[in-house]
Order: sequence, then C-alpha cells, then structure tokens
Amino acid sequence: MELMQAKGTRDFLPEKQIEKQKLIEKIKKVFELYGYSPMETPVFERFDVLSSKYAGGKEILKETFSFEDQGKRKLGLKYDLTVPMARVIAMNPALRMPFKRYQIERVFRDGPITTARYREFYQCDADVVGSKSMQADSEIIKIAERVFKELGLEIEIRVNNRKLLNGLMQEIGIEEEKTESVLLAIDKLDKTEKKEVEKELKEKGIEERKVKKIFELIEVKGKNQEVLEKLGKKVVSEEGKKGIEELKEILKYAKSYGIDNLYITPNLVRGLSYYTGPIFEVLLRKGKVKSSVGGGGRYDKMIGLIAGKEKEFPATGISFGLDRILDELSEKEKTGRKTVSQIFVVPINCSEKAIELVEEIRSLGIKTEMDLMNRSISKNLDFSSKQKTPFVIVLGEKELKAKEFSLKNMDSGKETKVKFSELEKMKELIK
Amino acid sequence: MELMQAKGTRDFLPEKQIEKQKLIEKIKKVFELYGYSPMETPVFERFDVLSSKYAGGKEILKETFSFEDQGKRKLGLKYDLTVPMARVIAMNPALRMPFKRYQIERVFRDGPITTARYREFYQCDADVVGSKSMQADSEIIKIAERVFKELGLEIEIRVNNRKLLNGLMQEIGIEEEKTESVLLAIDKLDKTEKKEVEKELKEKGIEERKVKKIFELIEVKGKNQEVLEKLGKKVVSEEGKKGIEELKEILKYAKSYGIDNLYITPNLVRGLSYYTGPIFEVLLRKGKVKSSVGGGGRYDKMIGLIAGKEKEFPATGISFGLDRILDELSEKEKTGRKTVSQIFVVPINCSEKAIELVEEIRSLGIKTEMDLMNRSISKNLDFSSKQKTPFVIVLGEKELKAKEFSLKNMDSGKETKVKFSELEKMKELIK
Repeated sequence: MELMQAKGTRDFLPEKQIEKQKLIEKIKKVFELYGYSPMETPVFERFDVLSSKYAGGKEILKETFSFEDQGKRKLGLKYDLTVPMARVIAMNPALRMPFKRYQIERVFRDGPITTARYREFYQCDADVVGSKSMQADSEIIKIAERVFKELGLEIEIRVNNRKLLNGLMQEIGIEEEKTESVLLAIDKLDKTEKKEVEKELKEKGIEERKVKKIFELIEVKGKNQEVLEKLGKKVVSEEGKKGIEELKEILKYAKSYGIDNLYITPNLVRGLSYYTGPIFEVLLRKGKVKSSVGGGGRYDKMIGLIAGKEKEFPATGISFGLDRILDELSEKEKTGRKTVSQIFVVPINCSEKAIELVEEIRSLGIKTEMDLMNRSISKNLDFSSKQKTPFVIVLGEKELKAKEFSLKNMDSGKETKVKFSELEKMKELIK
Repeated sequence: MELMQAKGTRDFLPEKQIEKQKLIEKIKKVFELYGYSPMETPVFERFDVLSSKYAGGKEILKETFSFEDQGKRKLGLKYDLTVPMARVIAMNPALRMPFKRYQIERVFRDGPITTARYREFYQCDADVVGSKSMQADSEIIKIAERVFKELGLEIEIRVNNRKLLNGLMQEIGIEEEKTESVLLAIDKLDKTEKKEVEKELKEKGIEERKVKKIFELIEVKGKNQEVLEKLGKKVVSEEGKKGIEELKEILKYAKSYGIDNLYITPNLVRGLSYYTGPIFEVLLRKGKVKSSVGGGGRYDKMIGLIAGKEKEFPATGISFGLDRILDELSEKEKTGRKTVSQIFVVPINCSEKAIELVEEIRSLGIKTEMDLMNRSISKNLDFSSKQKTPFVIVLGEKELKAKEFSLKNMDSGKETKVKFSELEKMKELIK
C-alpha cells in the first residue's frame, strides 16, 4: 500500500489550515455584515439532481464523481454550490424571499490537474434569491469589493450584461444558434490576441463585416457613463436597451454603496450559459498581471427550471475561488507558525504545579501548550521555537517559590516578569 | 426527477446552520485553548488507505462509499478522521512530536439509517500523537470536561483501561481468542440486563465459574481510589498491574487539571479493537437517561502499523458526536432566528439614502439587512418578524430630515432614538 492522498486532493497541515481558517472567517464576516446567512448542503447529491438539464451542463457532468449507495441509488459528489441550493429552494416552499445565503464548502471535479486546479476545492458563494432589483446585484458587487478590502488585496470588478450582449448579437445579425459560441470566443479576448479571436470567429462562419461590427461594439472604451452613452446610441433592440438600463441602475446604486473600482466592460462574457442579466468578474491586480479570483451574475431562470415549478425565482450571486486567494495571501503574509498556541510552558520537575498554573492561564482565554513529553529545557525550547510559538514560560522551583515567572517574546527576545497574582496582564502582553 | 437529498443526508438551512456554527466555534475554542491546531484532510481517500488491515476494520469497510476516478483509481469517502490522520503522519516524517491536532469534519458511512444515524455526519476529534505520558490522556479528558462546561451540558466521564481489562481476562483464564468477544459482551452491560449478558457469555462457552469471576471484578464499586485499591488487591498479572498504574497516574493529573466528574468504570470497554491503554466515554446526564456524546482512548500501535514504519507513534484522543450534541442544544436554547442579521432596515422611498446609512452601520460591524424587494412597510415588517430579526429601523423622509431614527427591539418592543451622528451607540443597544 502506498500512503498517498487521492490524486488532485491536498491535506491542510496546521500551518496552512490556520491561514485558511483566518481567510474563511474574514469572508464570512463580510457576508454576514450584509445579512447573508450560512447554509450547508451534503457533500453528495442524487445524480439526477446534478444531471438535470438545467443544472451545470454536459461538460461539468463529465467531471462529476459518481457512485452508488447500498440501495443502488446513483449519487454524485457536488460540483458546485448553486445546483444544491436550487434543490433546497425547490424542496422548501416555505422559505421566505428574499433568501440570502452563503456557503463556503468543498466541491469536486474529476478533471485534469494543473498547478492551480484540484479535484477537491473550495467555493465561497453568496446569493440573493427572490429579488429582481438591481440593488441586489449592486449589493453583491459591494460584498466583493469589501471582501478584498478586508483581505488587503487590490482588485478591479468588471461588469457587463447578458441582455446587452444578446441584444448586440441580434443587431449585428448573428444567428441565435451561433450566439453562444460567438460569445465564448469573445470571452477569450482577455487571454488571447485579438487576431486569434477574429480568426476563430471567421472559422465559425461569421462574415468579416459582422466580425468588424462586433469589435466596434465590444471595444467601446471610456468612463462607465461614457461607455453606456456610446453604446446607448448604437443599441436599438429592446433587449439591448434593457441591458443598458440595468447597467445604469447598477451604477446608480454603486454610488450609494460607495463602490470605487467598478468597470463596465463590454467584452466580458463569462462562460456559464445560465446568466440572464448583469455579470461580474473580480480580478486581482498584481503589477500588470490580472487574475480572476471570483465572478458571478444574475440567473433569473435557472432555479425555477430546476424546481420545475411555475413560480419564478430571480437570483443573483457571486462565487470566490478560495484556493487562489489563499495562495496570494500566503505569499504576502507568511508567518510560519505551525501551531495556534500563543504560549509554550516548559516545566522543570514540577508538571503538576505547572498544570494548575497553565489551567489558570487558559481560563483567561490564552491558548497555552505545555510539555507532554517530559523533555529537557533545551529540547522543549527547540521544539517551541521550531513550531514558532510566540511566547515561552520556563517554570521551575525558583519561579514557584517567587510566585513569578518570565514571559519571553520569542520574536523580539524581550522578557517580562509576571506575578502569579497578576496573570490577567498577560492578555495585553501577548497581543 | 424527484428533488430530494441523497438518502441519509440532510440540508442545514440557516436556522440550524447558525446553531451548528456556534457549536463548532465553542468546541474549536476549547481545543485551541489547549494548543491543539486545526488540520483538514480530503473528503475522499485512496481506497487502499481506508482498507488497510490496521485501519477501521471489516465492518466499517462494508459501509464505505467507494468509486473510481477517471484514471480508474479506486477511492472511498472517509469513514472517520483517525485513519486519514495516520496517513498524514506517515507521509510527513518532518512533523514534530507531539503533534496535537483537531479536525471537525464530515465523515460518511453507507449504513442503515435510524433517527440518530445519518450517512453523512460530523466528527470532532482532538488527538495527541507522540506522547506516552498519562498527562496527555488527562489533558484529553480535561478538554472533554471543558467543552461540555462551555456548552452548559451536564456530563460524566467514565474511564477504564484496556491493559487492566486484558489482565483481568488472562487472570480469569479467558482464552486469548475469546477475549475480544467477551469484552464486547461486557460492553453491553449499560444497555442490557445483566442476565442477558450472563447468558451471552455462557453461549460463548465461558464456564459459569468464570462468568461469576468476571462480574466480581467488573462490578467493583466505590470512589475512584477505592475501586483502584480493591482491584489492585485482586490483580496479579503484569499487564493488569500496568493498567492500574496508568489509571492512578490519570487520577493524579486529574487533580492538577481540576477534573471533577471522572469515574473509574471497570465495565467500560468501548468497541474499537485498536485501544491499548486508557479508554474514556462521555455521557450526557439528562435526568436518569445517560447517552454517549463522545469517547476515545489511547491507541499506541495503530498509526505505526498503518504507516508501516519501525517508528512508534503513541497516541491518544477523543471524538465527539456533533449531531447528538446539536440536537440536545437545539432543544434547550432554540431561538428560532432564521437569519444572522441583527437589524432589518425598511426604507420608505429613499433606498439610495438608506443604503448610505446602512453602509455606515455595517462599518461598525453590525450585521444589517435592508429591503431588496421594494416592499411596503407592513410587508417588510412581516418579513423581518417572521425571520426573527432582533431589531428594525424604519427610514423615511421624516427620519432623513431629523437625522434621527428609532431602533426597535422586536422582542421587547422597546424603541430607542438614535441620531445619525451617534450610530456608534447602537453597538451597545443591540447587545
């Protein structure tokens, strides 16, 4: 037997897991500030839920881990958090709208593995179900801004609108059956040369005149209001106009929310086909390189279709990729701490007395570890320094007699005397 | 398609998930106070790791969900948190000992479903690897005590020792191959009539004389020290004596740790065969009924055997059943809150101004929700009252002009005036 993780999965040892938990706490805090409540769905679902034709689509289904239970029921590991949420909403008609929930959970895809792609990875989703208002979309965008502000990462948020894109396609005369593949080609503009995209469009049978027209529209540049004005003059279809209206509303609310880094980006498409209105993407700015760390949009039809009910479930939401954010943060602020312990206590032949004192320290809410190996002082100091425990206390006969010990800061080397009777003051010292 | 969860799994809607998160936070806090650090392992493992003959055993393997990835590698959903931890330790020889880690994660078993048994459920494990000292076992017992104290649940902790049990079996003359099945019969004493257990033992071919002797030993009663003294007089084997020594040491440390509710219980066995020393069980006291909410013990050989290395990995730990604890707590302190929001803001024709104010409130760290549906006042109040949001603010022209609003406590009905310029004071008001 080879002792290995399953391919495409990782262990999170304490050092990394401590970082991840901090990150998750920060994201949760922002979600909850905006009144989004936590929800959790099982790791696996009935396969027929995951394979609903309104769910994730064929490509994603190819990457779905599937298996049977003892009753021969076909099951699958969830590949996203949206489809299970749709199921929950369909099953719980008493849920009151708007339903604002977040989920920070692992999802699973049995796909090819690259440096940044795993078969088990985290998604952080926040969605509003039940509201048609552009205020909901703006709130979601604000949440994205605030999350990254809390994390100290510089981002920009790009916004576009599917109604606008569909309208433009109609006006240019792209046949409906070709629209999606044209949009997918346009979506590559960020990563691919313009020439390559032009070539792809021509290969798809789009006439040169139309290709030119496409670029004329999606390459409109300027400040947000200018972009909308320019497009407004060119767009004639009902759907296109509605798309521009929605974007205008988002800009209006963005002002109230105080969103600064929002950019209307006519060539933003986003892959998934279920979007019906505003779409957004969050890009990390790192020098000249910009990498996507989240995205989302409005999907007014999907839940109702999965639910198979007459009722409509307008919805909008965002999903962040935790793993990429975690990598980014580890690079920036690696502490190297391998333990949550704030203090390590080294007793010299006095473990029973030491336990009593350590229990008092713990009662103050200070995370404290003490030797469990009966090691020598030097071995204990070596252990705690390798674990990077921030503070150390050595406790021997002398200290027990004087009812006083030294609290040593292992980063600065500074020692502070602390009397047994004034343990409280350590709360300040260890900050 | 039927919209259902997979059999044996549950959704945690916000009301329940909020409760669960609070519970998890409390348990985590105690684990970390004692210097246990978080770790996380994947949801699925290579099947050969899960099926190692030193791992969970045949019975558990029958209940393991298994499947293949695209590369035809056999995988399984993890059925506990101990086996994956053993793999992690084997794979990471640079991990420094003692390794103190906790994990609060879902595990999976494809078994029969009863009211209290699910196919996806949470385990909360804390373990120390690397220490042979009974101080480690005592720390683990103290953690159990502290967890339930924090939760406000009354418990008792029963302790016994496998070396003592094995020693007793030898002395009574139970053949080695029958020892485990005899111990398993004894383990039922808590739930079954003594007569039934006697009958089972006789059916297993144990002579009446020996059965009598077994009960004579395991029914020793009294205070902890008395029980050990009485047994000490009867036990003659090396192994049995070692077991008593270990229990004495635990009692010594328990005094330093200030553990009050510890009971040496000679008939405690615990099912798993990998225990090698002290074993413990946590029972919830609820009137006369006592139900197990956690248990553990020392397993000095298992990790080394799984790792297949010469090196020894003594270990001890405990596992709590989150689901049962959650049920118990929900019964006690049901709030009915369906949202994390502390305040719900109802704007009257002033959503843009309201957003600005709400953003200021959120900046104070107060979880605040506002209407996203453009509803009437009465519908908004109805919504927030059904969600059980604790506070409500109605914001209209009058309030905007006066730069002051009323913060209404929805439980007490009390209203407090708050000026726009003194939002800070809400932090106190909403406590």
